[in-house]
Amino acid sequence: MNINRKLGVFGGGQLGRMLIQSAINFNWEVRTLDPDAQAPCRNISHFTQGALKDYQTVYEFGKSCDVLTIEIEAVNVEALKQLEKEGVKVFPQPHIIELIQDKRLQKQFYRQEQIPTADFVLTENREELMRYQDWLPAVHKLGKDGYDGRGVQILRSVEDLSKGFDAPGVLERMIPFEKELAVIVARNESGEVKAFPAVEMAFHPEHNLVEYLFAPAEISQATEVKAQEIAQTIISKLGMVGLLAVEMFLTKEGEILVNEIAPRPHNSGHHTIEANQVSQYEQHLRAIMNLPLGDTEALSPAAMVNVLGEAGFSGEARYEGLEEILQLKGVHLHLYGKTLTKPFRKMGHITITDQSVESLKEKAQFVKKHFKVKA
Amino acid sequence: MNINRKLGVFGGGQLGRMLIQSAINFNWEVRTLDPDAQAPCRNISHFTQGALKDYQTVYEFGKSCDVLTIEIEAVNVEALKQLEKEGVKVFPQPHIIELIQDKRLQKQFYRQEQIPTADFVLTENREELMRYQDWLPAVHKLGKDGYDGRGVQILRSVEDLSKGFDAPGVLERMIPFEKELAVIVARNESGEVKAFPAVEMAFHPEHNLVEYLFAPAEISQATEVKAQEIAQTIISKLGMVGLLAVEMFLTKEGEILVNEIAPRPHNSGHHTIEANQVSQYEQHLRAIMNLPLGDTEALSPAAMVNVLGEAGFSGEARYEGLEEILQLKGVHLHLYGKTLTKPFRKMGHITITDQSVESLKEKAQFVKKHFKVKA
Repeated sequence: MNINRKLGVFGGGQLGRMLIQSAINFNWEVRTLDPDAQAPCRNISHFTQGALKDYQTVYEFGKSCDVLTIEIEAVNVEALKQLEKEGVKVFPQPHIIELIQDKRLQKQFYRQEQIPTADFVLTENREELMRYQDWLPAVHKLGKDGYDGRGVQILRSVEDLSKGFDAPGVLERMIPFEKELAVIVARNESGEVKAFPAVEMAFHPEHNLVEYLFAPAEISQATEVKAQEIAQTIISKLGMVGLLAVEMFLTKEGEILVNEIAPRPHNSGHHTIEANQVSQYEQHLRAIMNLPLGDTEALSPAAMVNVLGEAGFSGEARYEGLEEILQLKGVHLHLYGKTLTKPFRKMGHITITDQSVESLKEKAQFVKKHFKVKA
Repeated sequence: MNINRKLGVFGGGQLGRMLIQSAINFNWEVRTLDPDAQAPCRNISHFTQGALKDYQTVYEFGKSCDVLTIEIEAVNVEALKQLEKEGVKVFPQPHIIELIQDKRLQKQFYRQEQIPTADFVLTENREELMRYQDWLPAVHKLGKDGYDGRGVQILRSVEDLSKGFDAPGVLERMIPFEKELAVIVARNESGEVKAFPAVEMAFHPEHNLVEYLFAPAEISQATEVKAQEIAQTIISKLGMVGLLAVEMFLTKEGEILVNEIAPRPHNSGHHTIEANQVSQYEQHLRAIMNLPLGDTEALSPAAMVNVLGEAGFSGEARYEGLEEILQLKGVHLHLYGKTLTKPFRKMGHITITDQSVESLKEKAQFVKKHFKVKA
């Protein structure tokens, strides 16, 4: 077995940080590239400051590594394609990153492969968007460069149409869903595929970020199987190597519709670090290094609470309530090494494990109430 | 809560490496000092190459940090005492490191505090040692600078006495023990004390290193309680802040005798990363940062297998059998980032978790048989 390999990661954020924590166990030397000199990976990897969208920067960084992966999709795909041509392993493969960078291509892929998803039309500009009054209520998504709640508009009324994007986008029917689910699935180079159990997400009503997550999702066995199958189908049809997070709506009628996919470790899989046999990070590493995938079994019910910068505070982060929450059994802190806080910035997450779902939910509320990031 | 602190670690080996994996979650910037330019912590911390026994090196490194700890005992204590005087937090405290650096002082401490331990005499040189023929069979230990099986001689016959150390040492009665146990206990600055459940160790007959470890130890509830109490008593009597590993003999008569102590994360606690609510590494960090200690409850039975360099191989390490062992559920790999292997060098460890003790033992045997470090 060839280990001691150099793993290059595009992006030096929290996902890279947790990937490094896992890569250490495999003797892989991690190199990270990020435009921010204060990126969370700066002190725990061979860190290069540079632009992820710049061809030459991406190419040169990539040439110094044996295997390349991403922790953010917004990377120069042309450079990745060239690196792939020159024999560097790039997982997920560049053409898949390209597909996922564009929500319009993503939606067309679902349609073509008969993967259930909300009905949609492509829109080129705001003027064209105005024609779709009969699609309301709807969601307008920017084709490219949306991230973490940015690049998405909810359009309820005719007046709202003017808030839509004046750039190529996709207009989707609004789904009156019962729950939002996510399944993380992995596929290695040999074609082995394994899905994690579905999780249930609760979004913050205002800023459209995951606020809580519960695992396992409270759904029927049939829905669980269906959700995992859909995720497995997508990664297999893509022929993708790596980790794919599939966010889905469960409708009131019990239908599952795919909402978004991300070809990398994902916010909806953080709890796997403590709550599953294998974590999403180790699974991603196993997939891209073509090692056998780990067993995804859940060891315990878990809740994940995002630690977001408190509204009204910007500046050097101060954490309140650490002592209080660390007194609780099964509370696992993960801070992301960010010096500065601002409203709703993701500063960390906390996973809570507890065999009792009731006690789990109480602890999640306690953590949410007592742990604050201020400045 | 004051986080974002600079934690200085003396020693940049595998214990430091796993401590860093945990410190990342708390936003602590870790700085390590080690004489070896290829030390396991070199790429994942702010690394300084330098001698741990040199006053000036230790002092200057220490001045750049807010809190100092060790992952090896062999550090210049005078420099640590000076740093402590100047207000740097040093945990474990320098006078405790000094005590533990000297096995003679350790044994006298047990006697003075009525902590059960094998009967002993102090010896100044080999000539004096020769007088103790009536103590055989016995164990002769070098007072200072022993480490990982070095500095210990088993003396069975009168001829063996000449193998004893010609330097200040301690001669202990050989204990015909039933089992070797270890309890890891932590104490924070506020005086809170928590012990992990006892584990059972199996040593390799030749090279005196832990070969396997099983948790929980197969002992009576009464012995479990007694073992934990002894560990708690020692750390409390020492008034020590940090993590203390207490290795003990369980005699055929059910008596517990303290063998050795180590004031830091320890080989006998690696399994806590996956098998307990809190890991020994996080517990150590909580203790030295004066945070509430974590719950030590075991989540699963576990086995820990040390990954040692195969006899007969020296040079750049190659790992055999990785694919085979990673196919097993509950097998957790931890490699230590060492480039070169040599016979019996600790290259990593593997923790196996399984709710069935029988299956756990089978997997431990499988791992031991299939995973090899060669060159």
